[in-house]
Amino acid sequence: MTFILDPRLENDSVFICDLPLSQVRLSKNSAFPWLLLIPRQNDIVEIFDLSVADQGVLLNEMRVAAAVLKKLFTPKKLNVANLGNVVPQLHVHVIARFEEDKAWPGPVWNSGVKEYYADDELNEITAKIKKELTA
Amino acid sequence: MTFILDPRLENDSVFICDLPLSQVRLSKNSAFPWLLLIPRQNDIVEIFDLSVADQGVLLNEMRVAAAVLKKLFTPKKLNVANLGNVVPQLHVHVIARFEEDKAWPGPVWNSGVKEYYADDELNEITAKIKKELTA
Repeated sequence: MTFILDPRLENDSVFICDLPLSQVRLSKNSAFPWLLLIPRQNDIVEIFDLSVADQGVLLNEMRVAAAVLKKLFTPKKLNVANLGNVVPQLHVHVIARFEEDKAWPGPVWNSGVKEYYADDELNEITAKIKKELTA
Repeated sequence: MTFILDPRLENDSVFICDLPLSQVRLSKNSAFPWLLLIPRQNDIVEIFDLSVADQGVLLNEMRVAAAVLKKLFTPKKLNVANLGNVVPQLHVHVIARFEEDKAWPGPVWNSGVKEYYADDELNEITAKIKKELTA
């Protein structure tokens, strides 16, 4: 079965790599180092709609994503969340947060803070993250 | 070692029960059925600061909490998150969301939406949730 990515997720983020369960993408919002993990299964909305085994795989992949953000960016705090009120397709946010970021200490969603990577920045950061995720 | 609960978490929520790893509490904000899972270990900030085994236990407890909210409240969506930008002590939010709730589709944090349970309502809802969590 072909995995179908919600066009809003596709539009708001760029592909980094596939892990065993999830597609990993980087949010185009450069105000925060912000990964999305999207299990490549159709019609899954909640983490708990996955099989229990796949929930464990997702947790592993969240741990890997978190470790990569910690290593590359040394954040003050990680924000890890599945909301999905707007886009129901299951996607887990793993976000590096800093006391200096423009939404701190509030959440990033609905913060109104939106910045953009230059093309070469985007290429550089996705390559760096991909290298760590697949190391 | 005595488990020390952050006074801000204690003040914003009421005790429901202890699961094997986490203390489960209900947010006093009645605008949303909103559980907090707080692993009873001191000096833990990130989910990934827990041992890998305890991360699995936490995932189980999140699944149980989510199932209880689904059964009791039939939400449109669950919001599951660890932010901790304000209160670093690890606490995972498991929140039942509805298209009719006052923050939908935005996140509940920083939404400005705050309502209060009457005492008898609070007793009733905590008893109902406790019964399901410990069934």
